[in-house]
Parts: sequence; structure tokens; C-alpha cells
Amino acid sequence: MNPTLELLHSHRSDRSFTDQPLSEAELDAIVEAAYRGPTSINGQQVSLVVVRDPARRARLAEIAGGQPWIAKAPVFITVLIDFNKTAKAVAAAGERQVVHESVEGFGVGAVDAGIALANLMLAARAQGLGVVPIGGIRKDAQAVIDLLQLPSLTYPICGVAIGHVAQPAQQKPRLPIQTFRHEETYDAQALSPTVIAAYDATITDYWQRIGRSDGLPWSRNLANVYKLVYYRNTKPMAAKQGFLNDK
Amino acid sequence: MNPTLELLHSHRSDRSFTDQPLSEAELDAIVEAAYRGPTSINGQQVSLVVVRDPARRARLAEIAGGQPWIAKAPVFITVLIDFNKTAKAVAAAGERQVVHESVEGFGVGAVDAGIALANLMLAARAQGLGVVPIGGIRKDAQAVIDLLQLPSLTYPICGVAIGHVAQPAQQKPRLPIQTFRHEETYDAQALSPTVIAAYDATITDYWQRIGRSDGLPWSRNLANVYKLVYYRNTKPMAAKQGFLNDK
Repeated sequence: MNPTLELLHSHRSDRSFTDQPLSEAELDAIVEAAYRGPTSINGQQVSLVVVRDPARRARLAEIAGGQPWIAKAPVFITVLIDFNKTAKAVAAAGERQVVHESVEGFGVGAVDAGIALANLMLAARAQGLGVVPIGGIRKDAQAVIDLLQLPSLTYPICGVAIGHVAQPAQQKPRLPIQTFRHEETYDAQALSPTVIAAYDATITDYWQRIGRSDGLPWSRNLANVYKLVYYRNTKPMAAKQGFLNDK
Repeated sequence: MNPTLELLHSHRSDRSFTDQPLSEAELDAIVEAAYRGPTSINGQQVSLVVVRDPARRARLAEIAGGQPWIAKAPVFITVLIDFNKTAKAVAAAGERQVVHESVEGFGVGAVDAGIALANLMLAARAQGLGVVPIGGIRKDAQAVIDLLQLPSLTYPICGVAIGHVAQPAQQKPRLPIQTFRHEETYDAQALSPTVIAAYDATITDYWQRIGRSDGLPWSRNLANVYKLVYYRNTKPMAAKQGFLNDK
């Protein structure tokens, strides 16, 4: 089979890492994958901060709500929405950048950050490494901004822990593909209460299979997180960094 | 060399397509790549609408500001931020979803959409196909919403045209990698006016090399787009779809 398709179709998060560091060549190839990814209008409104220092990784693990794999993995890469660079370019051309003040700008940066994150993960997995994508750094973005010395018009939107896998994980089941793939127009009937109940059962089985006694059914977990704005600092912190000030 | 790294490092947009359709197997493998990608808290707040109908592609090409490759490529996939599905799950668990009202929620959806987009592109290119990622559908999101019959709490954030390449493109040069990759902390000096001027010259050379007489220096192009909010409908249209109503 096509090795790239095989990697893409077998995505999983491996949360257990050995102490073995990444080689410079491995890390370079990972970063290059994100660097070569597309960005909206070739704006290149994404940057990475590569953290190998153990103390800094331990601090990031703590900031992200206590995620031990961030401290354990030899490398953590923070993906930034970066309209600081573009603002310099716009200024060099004699204009003042305003796009970052809008949801449109923040959204463009977030999509581009997602592309970079996907490319980082795949380049790591293509070299036999394991990855854990992390959104938890948004829990206390100010702490990340301080730790990584992030300037205005940058925002730490997500990141990824990368290392050699100790104990391979299993792939998590998804909702039926009919709820994801729509033909020509959106089928609002695809996700019915029956489908949700069946997937809750599938996920419960999965938690039992991997020995996670604290695993919740899918709908219950989503309810717990999405009945509120879990990382409620995102808007005020983004505003403090200079984003989203358009009204 | 590792074929996956080779693909990742050679990313380019191919804007010329033959009339040859994609096989069902090719398309299935592409969609599966996005389907298996990670999403924040496994919320699966992304959906795809696969468009093959020529009239619908022609309309999307028009909506996106006149992008002929959308009409020419046999497949266009719209990537949706989809908190409609999660809202059903939250309701099934007896709660009311509020996360979509926040920039945090919209940002999570946008990152996940970016991951899906990257996986779609790579799965296509892994099969020898060409891709053009598209943000221009946000120019008139209402028209996309009508055309694809998108329900509330979904938003068409980006898309990709996919097909067999007629005339292979060249890879676009990037800013020096030092402006992208930061070690341990952010280096705000990496992007200097000198670096911007040098990259403007590099991009100007690139436009000349590929015969694009309308190509602008990087900083001038960014200034033209980012001195305003180019797709200024994103915030009001997202609000109309039920997003970002937290104030």
C-alpha cells in the first residue's frame, strides 16, 4: 500500500515516550514539513517555537493542565498564529495591517496553524516517531507567552509533543464516515440520536479495551467540555496580544 | 528518501488540471485521510462536502472570486467547521452547547479544519494528484451556505480543488527558515527589513520565472490584502450561522 496513505489512515496519538532524543536530522525534517506547507495568500502567518529544554517542557506540561507526555517527550513544538511578521511586511510597504483585528484574520491564522500541525505530525510519524497534538496550552496562554517570550500579534494556538514511542497506542474509533462526508450538499440527518448512542457505546468499548476506567461516553464528554467555554481566556488573551479588536 | 517527507517538503499548488475524473478509490482514500485526522477532544467538529457536479463547481469558482481551477478540477471539497454535530451530542447528554459562541470555539474548529485540509492535500498528492487550497469561498459565505445547504453551527472555512495535473507548478520560495523556526523562545529580530527586502526580490524573481507578469513583491501583496479585512463577511456571517455570539 501507499506508505503516505497508510500513515494518514492510521493516525493516532501516542502518549508514552522513551527518553531517546530526536536527532537533528529528524527534527529538521519535521520542521521543514510545516515550513513548506501552504499559508493563505502566502502570508506565512505561522511560526514555530521548538522546545527541547526539559525545564521548559515541564513548565509547558504544567500550563497545559498537567499533561505528563509534554514533559516526557524530548521535543515540544508550539505552533503560533503569527501576524507579527506580516505586520512588519505591511509596514515595509508603507501601510498599516488591520486584518489581525478581525475574526477573519484569527481564523486564517488558525487554519494555517492547523495545516502546520498536521504536517509536523505526519513528518514525525513518517520517521517512526509518535505524536500528541495539544490544545491545552491555551488554558493559560499568558504563561506560554511569558515562557516563550512571544511578542504582540502572535498567539500560541496549539502544539505537539514528539518522541520515540514506548507503548504504541490504538487508533480511536470515529463517528460513521457518513456524518463526516457529505455529497454535493450537507445531509443534516446523517447524525441521528441513534448514531450518537451507537458511537457512545463504541467509545465506551474502546476505553474498556485500553483500560481507561475514567473514559466517558462521547456525548457526555462533549457535554462536559462544550456546555461552557473551557479555555475562556482565548478571547481576552488574544485581544491582549493585539488580535480581535475590531469592535 | 522517505516518500512521505518528500511529499511534505515539495508542497506546491498545481493550478492546471486535465478533465480526467478521480476514481472512487482515489477519492475515498483522500476523504479517509481527513476523517482519521485528530480533532480537539475528539469532538469531530469538522465535516466535508464533496462536490463533483460541474455546475456546482462552476458556481463555487465564481463565488471564490473567479478561480477557474475550481471549475476545472473534477473535485472540490469544502471543509466545514461543524459544531452542529457536537451540539446534537451535547443535547443528547442533556446539556446546551455554548462553546461555539466563543472565539475559542471558532478557533478550535478552524485549527481542526486546517488539519483536515492538510490531510486531504497530502492524500491527493500521495496519489499523484494536484491540489489548490482555497480560502476564497469565505468571500461570499452566504452563497456557499445556500449552495451546499449548510445548517446552523456550520461554517465553510476553506476548501481544496483536486485533480490530475496538466502542467506541473514550481514550488514557491519561503521566507528564510530562521523567521519560522524559533529555538526555545521567540526571536523577534529574525524578520528584519533586510530580510523582507531580500524575500521581496526572491518572490519577484519567482514571478518572472513562471511568467506571472502581475506578481507583486511579497510585502506589497500583503499590504494590499492585510491593510483591510479582505473577507469582511466572516464575522457577521459566522454570527448568522450561530457562532461568536458571546457578547
